[in-house]
Amino acid sequence: MIDFQTNPERYRHWRLKVDGRVAFLELGVEPRGGLDPGYELKLNSYDLGVDIELADAVQRLRFEHPEVGAVVIRSSLDRMFCAGANIGMLATATHPLKVNFCKFTNETRLAMEDASANSGQRYLAAVNGNAAGGGYELALATDHIMLINDRRAAVSLPEVPLLGVLPGTGGLTRLTDKRHVRRDRADIFSTLEEGIKGDKAREWGLVDELVPASAFDDTVVQRAAEFAARSDRPGDVTGVSLTPLRRTIEPDRVEYTFLTIDLDREERTASLVVKGPDGPPPPDPEAAAGLGADFWPLRLARELDDAILHLRVNELDIGTILVRAEGDLDLVLAHDAFLLGKADHWLLREVVLLWGRVLRRLDVTSRSIITLVEPGSCFGGVLAELILAADRSYMLIGSWSGEGGSAAGLVITDSNRLAYPTWNGLSRLETRFWGDPGSLAGALATVGRRLDAEEAMAAGLITEAYDDLDWDDELRLVVEERASFSPDGLTGMEANLRFPGPETMETKIFGRLSAWQNWVFQRPNASGEQGALRRYGSGIRPEYDTRRA
Amino acid sequence: MIDFQTNPERYRHWRLKVDGRVAFLELGVEPRGGLDPGYELKLNSYDLGVDIELADAVQRLRFEHPEVGAVVIRSSLDRMFCAGANIGMLATATHPLKVNFCKFTNETRLAMEDASANSGQRYLAAVNGNAAGGGYELALATDHIMLINDRRAAVSLPEVPLLGVLPGTGGLTRLTDKRHVRRDRADIFSTLEEGIKGDKAREWGLVDELVPASAFDDTVVQRAAEFAARSDRPGDVTGVSLTPLRRTIEPDRVEYTFLTIDLDREERTASLVVKGPDGPPPPDPEAAAGLGADFWPLRLARELDDAILHLRVNELDIGTILVRAEGDLDLVLAHDAFLLGKADHWLLREVVLLWGRVLRRLDVTSRSIITLVEPGSCFGGVLAELILAADRSYMLIGSWSGEGGSAAGLVITDSNRLAYPTWNGLSRLETRFWGDPGSLAGALATVGRRLDAEEAMAAGLITEAYDDLDWDDELRLVVEERASFSPDGLTGMEANLRFPGPETMETKIFGRLSAWQNWVFQRPNASGEQGALRRYGSGIRPEYDTRRA
Repeated sequence: MIDFQTNPERYRHWRLKVDGRVAFLELGVEPRGGLDPGYELKLNSYDLGVDIELADAVQRLRFEHPEVGAVVIRSSLDRMFCAGANIGMLATATHPLKVNFCKFTNETRLAMEDASANSGQRYLAAVNGNAAGGGYELALATDHIMLINDRRAAVSLPEVPLLGVLPGTGGLTRLTDKRHVRRDRADIFSTLEEGIKGDKAREWGLVDELVPASAFDDTVVQRAAEFAARSDRPGDVTGVSLTPLRRTIEPDRVEYTFLTIDLDREERTASLVVKGPDGPPPPDPEAAAGLGADFWPLRLARELDDAILHLRVNELDIGTILVRAEGDLDLVLAHDAFLLGKADHWLLREVVLLWGRVLRRLDVTSRSIITLVEPGSCFGGVLAELILAADRSYMLIGSWSGEGGSAAGLVITDSNRLAYPTWNGLSRLETRFWGDPGSLAGALATVGRRLDAEEAMAAGLITEAYDDLDWDDELRLVVEERASFSPDGLTGMEANLRFPGPETMETKIFGRLSAWQNWVFQRPNASGEQGALRRYGSGIRPEYDTRRA
Repeated sequence: MIDFQTNPERYRHWRLKVDGRVAFLELGVEPRGGLDPGYELKLNSYDLGVDIELADAVQRLRFEHPEVGAVVIRSSLDRMFCAGANIGMLATATHPLKVNFCKFTNETRLAMEDASANSGQRYLAAVNGNAAGGGYELALATDHIMLINDRRAAVSLPEVPLLGVLPGTGGLTRLTDKRHVRRDRADIFSTLEEGIKGDKAREWGLVDELVPASAFDDTVVQRAAEFAARSDRPGDVTGVSLTPLRRTIEPDRVEYTFLTIDLDREERTASLVVKGPDGPPPPDPEAAAGLGADFWPLRLARELDDAILHLRVNELDIGTILVRAEGDLDLVLAHDAFLLGKADHWLLREVVLLWGRVLRRLDVTSRSIITLVEPGSCFGGVLAELILAADRSYMLIGSWSGEGGSAAGLVITDSNRLAYPTWNGLSRLETRFWGDPGSLAGALATVGRRLDAEEAMAAGLITEAYDDLDWDDELRLVVEERASFSPDGLTGMEANLRFPGPETMETKIFGRLSAWQNWVFQRPNASGEQGALRRYGSGIRPEYDTRRA
């Protein structure tokens, strides 16, 4: 089992040091510290385990260090920034593991850009030596790349010439769409094993600043201080400690405080239940900060994040996630309004942004997602995003027979309109009704109103509504049918249907770039016995099927 | 060898009938008329050969029938519109052939949409029975889908449930991005083998109009007449006949009137030379129409189109296309100005739009494209697009030693700014300088001026400039290096770098959708011995590796 939970005391590959307004994240990969003993992580090359620590640090910096306005990524090795993803790992990993590895590392780099764009925490890369492949792609995810000017250090994307695969952690996309490197120059750069250094790297826009070796460390500190000085983060408050999640993992069940997962291995489904809060929101943001990691929306978001990652990587055979929410809808709505109303407070802003990232992680999770709205559920505001993120959603008409009680209800709020954009830059509501402004307006007209199943159907917010007599049979059919389909067909279909409308750098990374990378990973020229990934380092040249497809 | 040249007299699968302002394209696939005898084209299912005829008809309608304002796609079979791509063909085709088949059929459908959007020739689909898979995707490419309401006829995308592959001819993308079908409904529809018919098909936006069986034929004719009446195409002029191309094909050489290809099979390159016009442009558009298919820009565009398709499908081992242009630059510029200046004339509009399609075909051709600008070349205006479409371009400084004469020059004109958008909706100039408005302005400041190599380098219009001493060695290195790389790595890299900036429905089809389809095609769950494509029709259920990647 791969565990995504860690903390700085357990890091083996990164060191996190905070100095006033500036944090330093120093990479010193432990060569024998890989997730699998079959490869050695030389030259600051990385595997998923190294990136789990980075993702943890990026997250902690936002919550635990409200004072930090700039983060420097640097290396503890001499003349070597980072050699990228470990090739021995890529050569031996299964296809699903390669895909999951790329997806997670992409999310981590996008989380750095999210911190920079929305949270006043800017990133700098202090490239003290070679930054190759994923090492340069890590630098590409920062706001400012400083390259040591020592006639040696180069940035490079040697994937195509050396390995026959793509710089797939956003590299190709960020070259043209973030750094605006001219496409023919990007072509030359991406086919140049040894990369580009010095003035040419600066002139082509591959780095932002060249720094003489003698002044490197001082200039990095100075530049970071300048970035930090322009941050809007509060300097004078205490952060919220991200204490370890409470979690029990049994063979077919994972239990957190506000979330449980039950696995049905025969049906290949995970039943995921999120729970609403136990009481009303705190009176003000300071009281929320006092609750710390126990503040309901913060705890649940972290639990949901961990649950998604666990299912993705450790439960490959689970094809469908059935999502339910149990609890008091009014209490959820009170928390939702509290979050949105006070989002100018640094902590609540972070909680809203965290929910945004967790939901976007769901959007690129290659499992069918079906949301079930039943009596006793609490899909409102932020939790209603789970309906909008689903491939399909079903709602019970009326109440369970014989049980009486109130029927299922759901509530769309302003936060569904404003707070949680998906990868295409739009809200999930706009995405759902893309190109259909009338239906969008109809759905928005229900904001704040508790909708029963018929009303939710009329507003286009759910897929189907069934009454108690049909519910079990209909859902069984849906689940069985889904399980009978090709998992790859479903993955490809969902990856297309989930992203109507405009595309952004992010959707290009997860759509165009990742899809091509997955194709390349699947091709014998990369992953076959004689392919480039398998032959790398053997001294034997790969043998290619030269037909262009 | 697969030949992309045909004409209505040779059609085996389509019948083209023109009745005043309305044309009827009737599909009646000859079951034994497949390109390969190994499969039977039952139920109006198609292979590449069927689509070559469709593409030819779509093209001819624009040039040969200026009077036609609406085109009806209908079927000659009873109660069956089209069953989509032939499954036997897909099951046995090599991976490169599947990819090329999908690419070409996508281009044909986009050519229909291009006719509708830019040329006043609207398309209607008269769906007289089932439209399944690619059959419905063909309808999706029209402006108006009319479904017979006979309680039987359904539209469907059964690829995922039946075959484990995607509706990859734009189907998934057009559902959400063209027809604005809600994504959860698109999910249901795309997993429903039997499809959707009647009122629900209309309500979900899958079709535009339901027509009772008794009134079907009449209503189709009436609706087509209404569309035609709104067209801006001239009703009173004679079209230009697209006479057969003059072409000689030898083992390592293809020769047309204004274009030659020489193949170097050892280096795996094609040397493609386009030739400029023999004289000045005609005095006016009517004179151009008098030249008919011999009008230089029309003939060259058709030859280039055929050459690209030939290389794509018949010369899989050719990895790099070296593009040169020979001729009088001033005569090219005179034609370029004539085309742009008179583009309100129906024929010149068609020629400009044809160039747009041919160049866009080049943009999605999975071969490395390198343009060489040498003395005696004529890259100006429309031909300069061949520089902007290239992955790299090289220009000679000065003239060949010992030969004297004038140095190579190139000229950007207003047509590079206005006339030939690529798939992302931008000009290739804007695409090249995406996110770098200063460089774009610098390049535009040269419009109309003949640039030598140093000036072209300074304006960012070429990749590198070499003098006579270095030219041969440098180019040999480039070509040899390219040939040493993984063909798949290059294909993936080029598919990303060629499309900086915004995405459109078209780039989503060629990027996101096609890349996922190619991935799925490569997966054992589709194409393996026990995969869905291979097992279809055998009575044995496919066996899936159930791990989600």
